[in-house]
Amino acid sequence: MADYIQPLQTLCEQFQRLSGIGRKTALRLAFSVLESSEEDAAAFAQAILDAKQKIHLCPICQNLTDREICTVCDDDRRDPTTVCVVEDPRAVLALEKVKEYRGRYHVLHGVISPMNGVGPDQLKIKELLDRLNDGVTEVIVATNPTVEGEATAMYIARLLSPFGIKVTRLAYGIPMGGDLEFADEITLYRALEGRRTVE
Amino acid sequence: MADYIQPLQTLCEQFQRLSGIGRKTALRLAFSVLESSEEDAAAFAQAILDAKQKIHLCPICQNLTDREICTVCDDDRRDPTTVCVVEDPRAVLALEKVKEYRGRYHVLHGVISPMNGVGPDQLKIKELLDRLNDGVTEVIVATNPTVEGEATAMYIARLLSPFGIKVTRLAYGIPMGGDLEFADEITLYRALEGRRTVE
Repeated sequence: MADYIQPLQTLCEQFQRLSGIGRKTALRLAFSVLESSEEDAAAFAQAILDAKQKIHLCPICQNLTDREICTVCDDDRRDPTTVCVVEDPRAVLALEKVKEYRGRYHVLHGVISPMNGVGPDQLKIKELLDRLNDGVTEVIVATNPTVEGEATAMYIARLLSPFGIKVTRLAYGIPMGGDLEFADEITLYRALEGRRTVE
Repeated sequence: MADYIQPLQTLCEQFQRLSGIGRKTALRLAFSVLESSEEDAAAFAQAILDAKQKIHLCPICQNLTDREICTVCDDDRRDPTTVCVVEDPRAVLALEKVKEYRGRYHVLHGVISPMNGVGPDQLKIKELLDRLNDGVTEVIVATNPTVEGEATAMYIARLLSPFGIKVTRLAYGIPMGGDLEFADEITLYRALEGRRTVE
């Protein structure tokens, strides 16, 4: 990218800092910006600044919010006795789409990963413990089914065991619409292990 | 995307305006911005503004530049008698990578496409004609080998025929490293048509 004119080069480098954006995509996006109107580019720049400045963590659940307390924590109709622990705000968005879960959330902002130097202290686990006195009876650990996600779930389960709180994990199994033929062995094993009586 | 908090929603919408960015990618990129530091986000916003403000069209070749006249037009060592006509600035970048072409460029900023309401007047064709008096002897029409690119090449060839300027087109054929088995029929036809004596 050495031969680009400087402002284009800089913009490409900025796009490349974003997750999953390589050299070619960065160039395409940079050209997209150049092809937009001056007002649109200004609105884009402003949106970046606004998002960064206005969005912070909810002091209770650690999810992203632009309000003092996030809409879930601030909603009296949401059951405060159940807390669903997730890795990141994206998981909250995914779960909220289901519209079935009526409890609260807690966002860890990561998983325990010694390889990446992330220990429990780097996660919002202390903040989770601080919430347990408020009548929490069940903690659903909904970290992703990866090695790190599982390890984090185990860690949290052990940490909460003295509190007498029910700790659950999401069910593993064949995804709906999936095909047994294409399911990996671990998923199939978990699906067998978690089999249920047909009622 | 209705349930996102407002600044996140706005940022997602801004990303979605960029070419080839859908809803999910926009969300991933927006989270990427939120995860970056305040300084990085400010640098990103500034890069967008800078690119848009500092980059304009070279008055001669219509390529993007942040200088008064672009580096190619301003380079006396580049042969001014040969002008390579391309659709967009990306094509100039691609051709410059080859490091073989020593002539000048002319960027049309599009192709003739009646379906999209783009006629010759919307392209930088008038600016091309204005340059022909400066001793141009060959115009290489390097528009893309699409229906619109071909039509534009034909249009330019006809337009230039009264000027007695040689108008050429890039060679079509099997791409290097390609496999005959996977070449489409039109490419194979063009490769046969454009066959050359082995010397």
